[in-house]
Amino acid sequence: MPHANTILVPVADGGEGTTDSLVAATGGHLVDVTVTGPLGEAVQAQYGVLGDGQTCVIEMASASGLILVPAELRNPLVTTTFGTGQLISHALGSGFRRYLFAIGGSATNDGGIGMLQALGLSLTDSSGQSIGFGGGELSRIAAIDDAAWDTRISECQFTIASDVQNPLVGKEGASYVFGPQKGATSEMVEMLDAGMHNWADRIAEKTGKRLHDSASAGAAGGLGAAFQAFFPSIETRRGIDIVIELTQLREHLQGADLVITGEGRIDEQTASGKTPMGIAQEAQKLGIPVVVLAGSVGKGIESLYPVGVTSIHSIMNAPMSLQEAMLNAAELLQDKAEQVVRTFLAR
Amino acid sequence: MPHANTILVPVADGGEGTTDSLVAATGGHLVDVTVTGPLGEAVQAQYGVLGDGQTCVIEMASASGLILVPAELRNPLVTTTFGTGQLISHALGSGFRRYLFAIGGSATNDGGIGMLQALGLSLTDSSGQSIGFGGGELSRIAAIDDAAWDTRISECQFTIASDVQNPLVGKEGASYVFGPQKGATSEMVEMLDAGMHNWADRIAEKTGKRLHDSASAGAAGGLGAAFQAFFPSIETRRGIDIVIELTQLREHLQGADLVITGEGRIDEQTASGKTPMGIAQEAQKLGIPVVVLAGSVGKGIESLYPVGVTSIHSIMNAPMSLQEAMLNAAELLQDKAEQVVRTFLAR
Repeated sequence: MPHANTILVPVADGGEGTTDSLVAATGGHLVDVTVTGPLGEAVQAQYGVLGDGQTCVIEMASASGLILVPAELRNPLVTTTFGTGQLISHALGSGFRRYLFAIGGSATNDGGIGMLQALGLSLTDSSGQSIGFGGGELSRIAAIDDAAWDTRISECQFTIASDVQNPLVGKEGASYVFGPQKGATSEMVEMLDAGMHNWADRIAEKTGKRLHDSASAGAAGGLGAAFQAFFPSIETRRGIDIVIELTQLREHLQGADLVITGEGRIDEQTASGKTPMGIAQEAQKLGIPVVVLAGSVGKGIESLYPVGVTSIHSIMNAPMSLQEAMLNAAELLQDKAEQVVRTFLAR
Repeated sequence: MPHANTILVPVADGGEGTTDSLVAATGGHLVDVTVTGPLGEAVQAQYGVLGDGQTCVIEMASASGLILVPAELRNPLVTTTFGTGQLISHALGSGFRRYLFAIGGSATNDGGIGMLQALGLSLTDSSGQSIGFGGGELSRIAAIDDAAWDTRISECQFTIASDVQNPLVGKEGASYVFGPQKGATSEMVEMLDAGMHNWADRIAEKTGKRLHDSASAGAAGGLGAAFQAFFPSIETRRGIDIVIELTQLREHLQGADLVITGEGRIDEQTASGKTPMGIAQEAQKLGIPVVVLAGSVGKGIESLYPVGVTSIHSIMNAPMSLQEAMLNAAELLQDKAEQVVRTFLAR
């Protein structure tokens, strides 16, 4: 269809790729910063500056992500969000006061203490010694001192992209729900949750805010709580909604005949805020059909039809292994897109 | 789509399932006959009588098919078409004079001598002894005597469904091209081809017909040659064309919005006479789009678009093994059909 007008809109849901998506969509640029990685090592992280020249996009995973930690070294007792704080500090120093914060993919369960320390908050144990990195230190926190806190934070507006509603502590909290996928054993989970309790108690003492059961406080290993406690102007939104707004998806959809989007695996869980559903909801408002291409299509996808998904196709073209599928993903995707458009145009 | 009007037309291309397809389409019935199987054992075979009450459909594979022979016993030196002749003989005795003959799936490479013997032809060696079953006997044929030949054959019209153009002998002949898939080693292939040469020479002596290089004589292990030599009224047609005619597919297509058909594996070879292409060619005449569902989609499928295929979809919904795919084929097929129709209707 050489006459077809195709509009490509790179999208993400607040997870990996969000910075790239928004920088590309707005004509912005990337800034490289060397920071302290999740294991205390130096890592090359980056944040984005949108095309407006005023808004920074920061993926916490760029500085403190699980992807930076080899599987055998994953241990949320020691991993820190310090690098995430350094990214903010660098952007503050460059004069930025508006932030989009994507907090998916964290390697950490430190309640955000690393980030806060990097921004000047002093956390000390019962003998007055500064506490170190990682979730294992949470239970030792006895006092919080904000004498050196970076007061530029109070001039800033933070929009946090998060689909996670979990509280800070308890069985539905950060440690129990997300600890294991970051390398925590069941014994470690109990230690981390006890530490989160202590941290929430200290926050309450210092700020008067009781965040133990606060919605989204458990996001990104408790990073959510750190924002809620010490950042005066925050707003939490569904990642895909932020991306839809900043990519001007609504405007791009005007006059479109068909929307094609995708996801690695699509199933009933996709119905809670992931990319295809967000896209479909927008397209549905304009009556535009949406085809979702996926590597793997699971059960329960019928829940996506009422929110605007027209049909869902796996890109597999034959029985094959996951490895084979990933190796040939580009070609499979192209072939399936052709077959879908052929079917769509046939009527 | 509870309001959709779906018309199911079981189709086949002259291979396995052809009898069932045509009996179902015409409101005919099946006739069971115990015959001699490919290895000389008794097997329960069957032929169909079409709804006109006058035409028989015989799949040679029902009496002499590869499917009747366990893999470890496959040996075209010994497998015989005798049972196929018995099916004809039974139908002749029931008064039938019109035949559709589907010759795919044979276990044999006996030049049709078994079938001819079952119908009364006498084949003897140089000492006047009757020769036995199987392609291994072909080289021993010294004389043909038709004194006991079933003369009712001359009252009959045979339409042979075959997509095979191969000659009887040589590198493109029955033994070389199809022998290996019936269990012949390379040494056996040479013996079988030499036997076919002798058989063709004896046919020429007896009938004056030189069939060595005759098109389609090599079909079904040389069964084609037996028809050409001793059956006065035969016509060879593409299997799918016969099926299209008898299922009244053309009439069923009138007013249809979409045709869905399928094949286990679809690739560039499908373009030479297989079911989906035949169906697509008919639908194309009426401007009806055709979607092909397949287990496996190979290379070169673009050759099917000009002949009427709209799009081709594998029914796989994720990376999986062939075994898993076959186990869940019914559900995968249903799910993919839904997605295809959803996509088709979206415009």
